[in-house]
Amino acid sequence: MKTIISAFLLFVSGISAVPAYGVDSESFVAQTNIPQASYPRVDSRNRAHFRIHAPEANDVKVDICGHKYDMKRGEDGHWTVVTSPLVVGFHYYFIVVDGVSVIDPSSEAFYGCGRMAGGIEIPEDTAVSAYYTFDRNIPHGQVRECRYYSEIENSDRRCFVYTPAEYETEPSRRYPVLYLQHGMGEDERGWHQQGKMANILDNQIASGKCVPMIVVMDYGNCGYIFGARPGETRDEFGASFTPIMLNELIPFVEKTFRTLTDRDNRAMAGLSWGGHETFQTTLRNLDKFSHIGAFSGALFFLSDGLENAYDGIFNDAEKFNSRVHTFFLGMGTEENFGSDKISEALTEAGIKHTYYSSEGTHHEWLTWRRCLNEFLPLIFKQKDDVAYEN
Amino acid sequence: MKTIISAFLLFVSGISAVPAYGVDSESFVAQTNIPQASYPRVDSRNRAHFRIHAPEANDVKVDICGHKYDMKRGEDGHWTVVTSPLVVGFHYYFIVVDGVSVIDPSSEAFYGCGRMAGGIEIPEDTAVSAYYTFDRNIPHGQVRECRYYSEIENSDRRCFVYTPAEYETEPSRRYPVLYLQHGMGEDERGWHQQGKMANILDNQIASGKCVPMIVVMDYGNCGYIFGARPGETRDEFGASFTPIMLNELIPFVEKTFRTLTDRDNRAMAGLSWGGHETFQTTLRNLDKFSHIGAFSGALFFLSDGLENAYDGIFNDAEKFNSRVHTFFLGMGTEENFGSDKISEALTEAGIKHTYYSSEGTHHEWLTWRRCLNEFLPLIFKQKDDVAYEN
Repeated sequence: MKTIISAFLLFVSGISAVPAYGVDSESFVAQTNIPQASYPRVDSRNRAHFRIHAPEANDVKVDICGHKYDMKRGEDGHWTVVTSPLVVGFHYYFIVVDGVSVIDPSSEAFYGCGRMAGGIEIPEDTAVSAYYTFDRNIPHGQVRECRYYSEIENSDRRCFVYTPAEYETEPSRRYPVLYLQHGMGEDERGWHQQGKMANILDNQIASGKCVPMIVVMDYGNCGYIFGARPGETRDEFGASFTPIMLNELIPFVEKTFRTLTDRDNRAMAGLSWGGHETFQTTLRNLDKFSHIGAFSGALFFLSDGLENAYDGIFNDAEKFNSRVHTFFLGMGTEENFGSDKISEALTEAGIKHTYYSSEGTHHEWLTWRRCLNEFLPLIFKQKDDVAYEN
Repeated sequence: MKTIISAFLLFVSGISAVPAYGVDSESFVAQTNIPQASYPRVDSRNRAHFRIHAPEANDVKVDICGHKYDMKRGEDGHWTVVTSPLVVGFHYYFIVVDGVSVIDPSSEAFYGCGRMAGGIEIPEDTAVSAYYTFDRNIPHGQVRECRYYSEIENSDRRCFVYTPAEYETEPSRRYPVLYLQHGMGEDERGWHQQGKMANILDNQIASGKCVPMIVVMDYGNCGYIFGARPGETRDEFGASFTPIMLNELIPFVEKTFRTLTDRDNRAMAGLSWGGHETFQTTLRNLDKFSHIGAFSGALFFLSDGLENAYDGIFNDAEKFNSRVHTFFLGMGTEENFGSDKISEALTEAGIKHTYYSSEGTHHEWLTWRRCLNEFLPLIFKQKDDVAYEN
């Protein structure tokens, strides 16, 4: 029997059991680690402590938040480093082993940066983070993985669908639907795994802050990095998603789930490139959407002038304002993705919208959790006074 | 605007765009890769071709199926290797960069080996693999991520629940439940991601081979490697799952889903250490379970003699046979995890059971897909003749 166990342990090579010695008493294990990994850790100053066993390596770095930190080799072959204080929120990171960027063996893996990446959560005060934290005392919705066949792509696709807790207990009720898109280099997993959208929805629905809704997260065909697909121009990047969404995803969702299917009850929002996709999709299809959100995104169209954007849709403010029930823009104060510029131009043109500024956050998931938290209470509360006409 | 894009591309550092040159005309991109990655590839001889950019590394290997293959450095800093022909099925693998085992940047990541790992699928002939392949022409069930609070652990837990396609359209129907466990070093994602259980269920339900059922996949508390938790003995490894399953998971599932809750309609099966957990849980709780499966697992108890196992349950064959409607053991011909020895001992003791031998497969997911495929048609078809008594 012992030889079987030995064979198994040989089979599962590549394990780095990390004993918990040398621990800073103020630091705690990052919640984004795999089970039993005692590093990376985060301390009370929001510094991350990394540690990896690499006795044969010549140079090991941590690549996080735009900086590369040199790790220092200890006599036991473990390399360690403590970063500068990091901004709160979720950050992708890589360990660079002799020039090769790889996932820290101690980290859970997240799809971002056009590949699987390590991730670390620098937590906020619990009072501040409560809105995206699991609350044991409220009912919880489900995130369902669904697969459907796309004739357009000639392949099966995967989407995730959040259903509110009461979906199970109210079998005759129908719900409005929010289509929620990830950013460049990410995929349909992002909003749930990195964005903690299920916690945000559960908490808001339980407190009555937003209405119970279905949320659909699909792949925006922009999960690889800009320019990586041969021959694709910027205009085309991710554009293949819109026809799939309109002609295949929405019909699939409305056939499979108990949905409300009029424009009053259909929203779309996205972060970064997903905000761009949201504008591309909704502003040319207002017969289908009346609630629109762009989080740190949708900036490119402005360079051609607001008056030329989307077939001149912003030139008739009264018409636009009567059709679009929610028009939301948001961005972090520490990034520069242009949402504030769009908001200024829209204000000048008389276009009603909400602009949210996320204090102290970068182009990362904490900005987008906050944007979602601000966006949700606004949607599905206004209705068309008169029937929509083109 | 260009500076924003440049900043973004700096932010998402660590990308290895892999141009598709030097491609063996007979080979194709592995289906387990991330989008746009043209390596690893698999050729018609079932050899895997690996490639990684590591201009500064001194030594790069691929660690797969118990072998380490030295990669060879090309002048452009790309390292490549072609393996020997590999056995069909799903294999975890690592790239070893100057002694550090890491996930290939071109691979999707899978939880296995007690950590996130790379994975590669060596496909079978399409006729053979049809049972675990997505079929666009049939209805598809959903895999739902659910979270529930465990008083025993004082933390929230995650499980995945497969519901059959008709669950959405038959709102008053109740379904039997199979609890399906992963193996050592894996977690609740394994059966869906590596095991392709949703395809197997969809295909069997559509053809009428198995009855429509709910399948629950939870974390067996054995996802770290044996001995990694300080002070834990072999007997205790993963044992904390049984009380959680009986007292918290099953009540949660039966409260949340439309389930049939008698022992005729509750099954449990698991692979490797999950098979051991299945025996530990079911054989002491036959008032709750009547269908039992162990795939390449549950071997340890035999060393103390069948007559001493599980409070002597195998000593009264007639009683056992009348209570246990399905008793299934399976194993690959290329592994040595003892299921055949258990089967021989059971036969000698007059215990009715099914033994399945998977031709040509190792201790990996293809064995377990096949075992599941053999197990499903057997369960939920027999009922107790008389009420169960202890």
